[in-house]
Amino acid sequence: MKNIDINIIGAGNVAWHLAHRLFICGYKINSIFSLHSENAERLAHEINASVLKNITDFQPAMVNILSIKDEVYNEIITQLPHCEQIFVHTSGSIDTNVLAGLSDNFGVFYPFQTFSKNKPIDFSQVPICIEASNEFTKTTLTTIANDISTKVYFLTLKQRSQLHLAGVFASNFTNALYGLAEEILMKENIDFDIIKPLIKETANKIELLRPYESQTGPAARKDWNIINKHIAMLDNDNKRNLYRFLTQIIQEQQKKHHSI
Amino acid sequence: MKNIDINIIGAGNVAWHLAHRLFICGYKINSIFSLHSENAERLAHEINASVLKNITDFQPAMVNILSIKDEVYNEIITQLPHCEQIFVHTSGSIDTNVLAGLSDNFGVFYPFQTFSKNKPIDFSQVPICIEASNEFTKTTLTTIANDISTKVYFLTLKQRSQLHLAGVFASNFTNALYGLAEEILMKENIDFDIIKPLIKETANKIELLRPYESQTGPAARKDWNIINKHIAMLDNDNKRNLYRFLTQIIQEQQKKHHSI
Repeated sequence: MKNIDINIIGAGNVAWHLAHRLFICGYKINSIFSLHSENAERLAHEINASVLKNITDFQPAMVNILSIKDEVYNEIITQLPHCEQIFVHTSGSIDTNVLAGLSDNFGVFYPFQTFSKNKPIDFSQVPICIEASNEFTKTTLTTIANDISTKVYFLTLKQRSQLHLAGVFASNFTNALYGLAEEILMKENIDFDIIKPLIKETANKIELLRPYESQTGPAARKDWNIINKHIAMLDNDNKRNLYRFLTQIIQEQQKKHHSI
Repeated sequence: MKNIDINIIGAGNVAWHLAHRLFICGYKINSIFSLHSENAERLAHEINASVLKNITDFQPAMVNILSIKDEVYNEIITQLPHCEQIFVHTSGSIDTNVLAGLSDNFGVFYPFQTFSKNKPIDFSQVPICIEASNEFTKTTLTTIANDISTKVYFLTLKQRSQLHLAGVFASNFTNALYGLAEEILMKENIDFDIIKPLIKETANKIELLRPYESQTGPAARKDWNIINKHIAMLDNDNKRNLYRFLTQIIQEQQKKHHSI
């Protein structure tokens, strides 16, 4: 067991995977609090922690992790005691200063990954982005981060916010496109399995090639014959506009890089 | 050596990987023709084939594969002899009938993957989509497909066209989003490596969860605070519109599935 104990406020996707990883790596998780008490109970049960029923009963651990929705920060923070222990949040876009009223020792512990409760993940490959109010906090957070992951980064607020934004494009929006592809295949009774190797290879190409270098397909080779056929095949204006829009972006990316 | 010999017309990304795979699996490739003769020479050299200088000198092999741009089909096909051998193309969207004038034995041999010459690929996992004008052609193409891949599908023209369209969303457009993410990170001097685990995990999630089930991020949880902050951070109208548009699509996908 490590000599750092931890409280977790929140029991959503990030809190869920982070708490499990900390527990597996030998950290004692004291208490879990969530506005959704059944989530807190399930999580606490799995990692041998207590459930905190009332946030007003909160007893600070050495490190206290807030992993909650942006809009409930104020509600939660105003009910926590001022203390000397470390407070961090796990958000990609919130200023650490929201925690400054709680302790002099505060920061960010942002695992940069897409987490779903029922999808296991190799946490050792999850980048942990740290920001800290002082050296003591930085050292403690770095120790924990190095214990649970092989990828530790120190980012400013501005960098972290831009990283979060980049992640929305590379993950959430990408996944929305997978959803559109699934919809097209289902209409033709084609098994989604047929497209999985393509999705994986597209992601794997980033290890060897920059995105503009690995681009293929009708947009990149300016095959207007197919582009127009595709647009005509789509079943609503939203999809047709999205197709045109992303085709234009691909062609701009190709032009920009090939003219350098 | 297999008892089926093959000619390949074209030396682009698809022809390149397909020719190498056929060669490795023991097929004799007779000749390579390309309108870009240096590509044909490079490919022919690597797989021990001859280069055909003039398409008018074309001598049919048992199977003849056309892997060329849509707009040059007419130019090439009108110069080929009528014969009894098999002619196929590798296109996701062209009707097999374009080959009907060449032989009674014609079809499609469509490897559904994103190919870049300088990115090796595990071809055994590449879905091969077959269409054939008769049983003889179907049997021959199926034999070859099963030799070079473990994933063989029989699709109609309509299914193949829709599959191609789905592939543009799931691969080309997805890759364009990786490019936008890269651009955002480069501006902040953040190494693109930091986002690679996220990209890979987003793709890996499709093995366990449907896209709408694995969706995370501000759009899915309707976090307008972050959504508006992100839109304000983007540096031009095109990106802002794309962000709004894909956010709306994610919210529609969530609504559709959660109301069923």
